[in-house]
Amino acid sequence: MPNLAGHVVLMEQLTHYHNGEFLRENEISYSVNDVGLLRGYAVFDFCRLQGSTPLFIDDHLERFRHSAGELSLEIPIDHNEIKNVVQRLIRTNELPQGSIKMILTGGDSEDGFTPGRPNMTILNKPINYPSSEAYQKGAALMLHEFHREFPDVKSTNYLTALKLQSIWKEKGYLDVLYHSGDVVWEVSRSSVFFFDGDKLVTNKEGVLKGITASKVLEACQNKFEIVIRPISLNELLNAEEVFITSTTKLVMPIVRLGDQIIGSGRPGNRTAQVRTAYDKFVAQYIQTHGG
Amino acid sequence: MPNLAGHVVLMEQLTHYHNGEFLRENEISYSVNDVGLLRGYAVFDFCRLQGSTPLFIDDHLERFRHSAGELSLEIPIDHNEIKNVVQRLIRTNELPQGSIKMILTGGDSEDGFTPGRPNMTILNKPINYPSSEAYQKGAALMLHEFHREFPDVKSTNYLTALKLQSIWKEKGYLDVLYHSGDVVWEVSRSSVFFFDGDKLVTNKEGVLKGITASKVLEACQNKFEIVIRPISLNELLNAEEVFITSTTKLVMPIVRLGDQIIGSGRPGNRTAQVRTAYDKFVAQYIQTHGG
Repeated sequence: MPNLAGHVVLMEQLTHYHNGEFLRENEISYSVNDVGLLRGYAVFDFCRLQGSTPLFIDDHLERFRHSAGELSLEIPIDHNEIKNVVQRLIRTNELPQGSIKMILTGGDSEDGFTPGRPNMTILNKPINYPSSEAYQKGAALMLHEFHREFPDVKSTNYLTALKLQSIWKEKGYLDVLYHSGDVVWEVSRSSVFFFDGDKLVTNKEGVLKGITASKVLEACQNKFEIVIRPISLNELLNAEEVFITSTTKLVMPIVRLGDQIIGSGRPGNRTAQVRTAYDKFVAQYIQTHGG
Repeated sequence: MPNLAGHVVLMEQLTHYHNGEFLRENEISYSVNDVGLLRGYAVFDFCRLQGSTPLFIDDHLERFRHSAGELSLEIPIDHNEIKNVVQRLIRTNELPQGSIKMILTGGDSEDGFTPGRPNMTILNKPINYPSSEAYQKGAALMLHEFHREFPDVKSTNYLTALKLQSIWKEKGYLDVLYHSGDVVWEVSRSSVFFFDGDKLVTNKEGVLKGITASKVLEACQNKFEIVIRPISLNELLNAEEVFITSTTKLVMPIVRLGDQIIGSGRPGNRTAQVRTAYDKFVAQYIQTHGG
């Protein structure tokens, strides 16, 4: 893969940040005593780069701080220092389609249970977007009864998702939608939207605060009537248009939920309008914030 | 701390096993791309040593294999090879009060989500038992509504427990009891028992299969009538005697649940009989299996 300057990018030569140092990936080492590994006690956040601009970085950092705070983990460097590190990684690696992942773990533990001093890594790697075919045809989601224990915390606990992953891939699903009976929560890594007539509906309680979701709402505020409320599985299964949003999936049309075809079984016009509005919103952000 | 041969034990000089090698702890390194760290996708098991005998090691290995299988993780070495590694660690480190922890992670991931080749560590470290005061006075448990997502898997997901830990320590609780409304599940790292008259009651559905719990049941089978069934929170709060079992807590009397004093507020006679029966059972095991 060529970088922004036209040179070949080798994964092992990318520079990342770890506890104050700039290192290659194979130089970053976590102890087996880190409760991030031993007890799944860690948070993260993830943003994508458009050229050299980290999209909505302030929102991601705010959510990262919230997640850390909920787990009583102190982030060792402040907001602006993180942004400086991110800029340095972007300039060093010059990835044409890059991402930033910040990881904060509970740190090395003496007794294997009590957190120690947090370890922090910032990775700058290529990003994988879904295929253009998925956007053209729309995607399918597996259904699974589950509710994340601390939904507003972006923790590393993806046990359910990774356990189900081989099943959903085998059956051709893009991801899994979590629900409790008739109450819809979220997709393992995405927010859920649907159209009720011309009303654009999404939920906010009991789910992760999606950054892309909040930007989609901003982008669409003068286009559709927006309703924020709990979503029932029954109305979602019978909606004309369903889509999900995330940092990597952007605005992804959903045409099947479990065995149930949604609407016409093809991506809808209003979802396409949402995508256009979101793309315009991103372009404006880059104009204002771009390096 | 002196070892079995009377020499001082330095933590950093202990030998452990990692992916086929015998290493010091600071030589064991996990990548930031291991889904054990990035996604909390890992299992473990933990057994204690009595002298140089790993107690009930075959049961622990069987549960470890079950946990790994539920997450579709392949253990890279077989049952007998693990036992040989454990014996070598015990002979090398000669810890007077030791433990064995086996950890199997989902391994390094190319996309940060799909598991790779599992990494396996076996740690041989000192063990910390609760204070003798806790056994004499009995312990208190915090109550919290929660049910682990895959209860029969000993995964590394202890997010809820570690998040609550600072609260329970501050309030003088030993640990946290999970329940869903009136249905009692388990303690974050222990099994729950109570006496209904002379009947010894414990649950088996929706909880981790406790090795100590199963040995307590074997040890007590001719002493008390044993009843295995769901436990209601109401009956537990009103029981005369409650205790919990685990590899490190052994048979721990519980004298308070939340604000509710249990029975007389002191450890009961029948719980003491259970402890005696369990200790005898362990002594017999060591006679049969001891090195």
